[in-house]
Amino acid sequence: MFLVNPKYTEVMGKKCYPGILDVEGEIDYVILGISALVLPKVLEECIRKGVKVAQIFTAGFSETGIPEAIERERELQRLAAGRIRIIGPNCFGVYCPRAGMAIVPEAPTEEGHVGVVAQSGSVAECFSYFATTKNLRFSKMVSYGNAVDLDGADFPEYLADDPDTKIIAFYVEGARNAARLNAALAKAAEQKPVIAIKGGMTEQGMRAAASHTASMAGSPEIWSAVFNQTGALQVESFDEMVNTVMAFDACPLPAGRAMALITNSGGFSVIQTDRCAKAGLEVPRFSARTLEALRALVPLAGTSTGNPLDAWPIYYNISPSGNIAEIIKLVSSDRNIQALVFQFDQFRYLRRVLGQGVGAHMKRLSELMVEGCRHARENEKKPVLVTVSLDPYLEDEEDRHHNLMVKRAFAAEGFPVYADLDAAIRALANLCRFSLRQRQEG
Amino acid sequence: MFLVNPKYTEVMGKKCYPGILDVEGEIDYVILGISALVLPKVLEECIRKGVKVAQIFTAGFSETGIPEAIERERELQRLAAGRIRIIGPNCFGVYCPRAGMAIVPEAPTEEGHVGVVAQSGSVAECFSYFATTKNLRFSKMVSYGNAVDLDGADFPEYLADDPDTKIIAFYVEGARNAARLNAALAKAAEQKPVIAIKGGMTEQGMRAAASHTASMAGSPEIWSAVFNQTGALQVESFDEMVNTVMAFDACPLPAGRAMALITNSGGFSVIQTDRCAKAGLEVPRFSARTLEALRALVPLAGTSTGNPLDAWPIYYNISPSGNIAEIIKLVSSDRNIQALVFQFDQFRYLRRVLGQGVGAHMKRLSELMVEGCRHARENEKKPVLVTVSLDPYLEDEEDRHHNLMVKRAFAAEGFPVYADLDAAIRALANLCRFSLRQRQEG
Repeated sequence: MFLVNPKYTEVMGKKCYPGILDVEGEIDYVILGISALVLPKVLEECIRKGVKVAQIFTAGFSETGIPEAIERERELQRLAAGRIRIIGPNCFGVYCPRAGMAIVPEAPTEEGHVGVVAQSGSVAECFSYFATTKNLRFSKMVSYGNAVDLDGADFPEYLADDPDTKIIAFYVEGARNAARLNAALAKAAEQKPVIAIKGGMTEQGMRAAASHTASMAGSPEIWSAVFNQTGALQVESFDEMVNTVMAFDACPLPAGRAMALITNSGGFSVIQTDRCAKAGLEVPRFSARTLEALRALVPLAGTSTGNPLDAWPIYYNISPSGNIAEIIKLVSSDRNIQALVFQFDQFRYLRRVLGQGVGAHMKRLSELMVEGCRHARENEKKPVLVTVSLDPYLEDEEDRHHNLMVKRAFAAEGFPVYADLDAAIRALANLCRFSLRQRQEG
Repeated sequence: MFLVNPKYTEVMGKKCYPGILDVEGEIDYVILGISALVLPKVLEECIRKGVKVAQIFTAGFSETGIPEAIERERELQRLAAGRIRIIGPNCFGVYCPRAGMAIVPEAPTEEGHVGVVAQSGSVAECFSYFATTKNLRFSKMVSYGNAVDLDGADFPEYLADDPDTKIIAFYVEGARNAARLNAALAKAAEQKPVIAIKGGMTEQGMRAAASHTASMAGSPEIWSAVFNQTGALQVESFDEMVNTVMAFDACPLPAGRAMALITNSGGFSVIQTDRCAKAGLEVPRFSARTLEALRALVPLAGTSTGNPLDAWPIYYNISPSGNIAEIIKLVSSDRNIQALVFQFDQFRYLRRVLGQGVGAHMKRLSELMVEGCRHARENEKKPVLVTVSLDPYLEDEEDRHHNLMVKRAFAAEGFPVYADLDAAIRALANLCRFSLRQRQEG
């Protein structure tokens, strides 16, 4: 790595060169964060130096809508054509843990299997900033901004063949060449799940996209058709994209839409069942065998041994016999059930009842819950999505501490963990949608 | 307050009576948390004592689906009919800060203007547990469970006339007498906003409701028609209900659907504009006057002075002139704009740039943001909904600390604050839906 800036001779103890032509070694790749006005001159020097790819952070081009700025972008394009490949301008460029390249300092240095292609720098930045929190690790990530050269078709095509990438997340605002994008997405989706979101699916959103990356948006119907035909799984929000990627990264594909929900709060389980059904999932009755076995393990009053299983005493292990691990195993082995959503939202109740003893109880309870869910995933081969409910603004530090402990216990075992149940439900519904489409095609 | 339990003579330093008939004073209201088996005997004693209302926490009745338990509930009903009013069984009963009655120890003791009627105890419990976090205060709250006597019609009817209650949140799973419920909701909705949710709006949800409060659910179409005809505003999830109540509690009604969004992240503002449009809101262009004024206040590169206003430099106050308070005031005074959603999601960027100086900067920035939003609400009389983005699982305590500080600054000034933008958008869309319906009728 070489640092170049005519104002300094040294930056953070490392030598700094006045210009790129002053660097003695060969250079493959440059990252340019300089004024738009001097960009053509520096880019010309990069070409003379033999640089293969220039990643251009600089903004102030066609996205501003101002004629001079649009002309500046055209000039950049003409200058580069056939001589150097460009990522950007108006982008964060590449994050690749293996190569030691990052977009933000907070991004994990460990590699993973998720590839991200995002026209928006913020989307890429947000993916990498929250990677630790979401338990996500990446193979390669790129934000490509105004896409004067390499564009939304090139990156999925590359990731399709990349053995390190097992899932692709794709955020796009527009494309110059629909046929190329179509081919690239189809190639990628044939080999691995592609979770896609199109920014600018409404008239007002299109206007926002135009002023963001100067994208010609295309009609929403065309985009939905592109995703459908190519086999990319379209989602509607960034959160849904992240939550869905987490599920694909961590779960086997379900054999069908029938899920079990283990929860602990009557009124919510009714609303939540509605949400599952509306998302396209089924919450079928447990088999007679499961029901019979549950009746022996769960006390009657204030509980429901149906599906959802809404049985607060199981979190206290005060059932007549058995414990919560056994109950999770039992439910997940039911033949009517193809996926499990397990929700923990019980700390404040446990604290009211157990008082000082709640800490030790939580530790043991965590182990048992994880044990049960591990059985469901590993022995029953069913996807397990976990919700540890946590309000972001909660300032009850003891409550937060214990919930985070449970979250970490599940995350450490590779489960996708969501702070609200709706997120888990939507992610599972997407996993099912993908799985069923694949089965139909297979 | 008198404590009754034959096993104790004293509880927490307060005298405890062996039976209710041993209490010397008169008793208006009893809370019964005793075994279902001894309930008839104790209830008979309450009647002899002249008690007006019994709130029955005890579960193990018709919600279990077991014939003996159903018969037990019928017996309770026969026993009470015309002799004592009952709330429950299988419920948490009443939370009324003025009377010093609570459902959970964490509920605020201060009074507010939100009335809650929830067939589910968990829904009521959750409302009161998160009241502080959500900046909500209540007039009266009731969870009424299996509703053998007082039911979902009685409570809205009461709250309709209650001068302390300005908004009603209503969670229902079923009703015995549709005509009475219809009349009660119509009466309530004529006088104040009623935000309603029906648990069991899908076949599978109905089954869950039956095993929760033994409700005969009725078809989803009938329920939607009931809400529509009576003027109650139907929502789909508990979170949406809480978020909507927060908006009604804190905002003037908007004159129309046209909103401004002030945010700071290009890719997201495009997706978010789509979300606004899909929710039924409009994100119109700013007037020429506003655009011209913005151009003088916001630097060009990497920003968009359209609506959404996506302009990261304004959070640094590094614009050529003016500051973020002026920018918020300017946008909110635009004639094309009838509501404002202001999003803060900038801390991690500010920290990267400002380093140690970020603390002092955040303090000043908070003041300016609040000042701008106060102008929008008080001078422009437009609803302002605030988003301070915060991931619940974020373990970067410095990031969390500063975001919570901003959240508290807005909450202290009475703004509704949401941790994710989607929640604010849905809440504003509901506020608009209500406002436009009212204008059509008026």
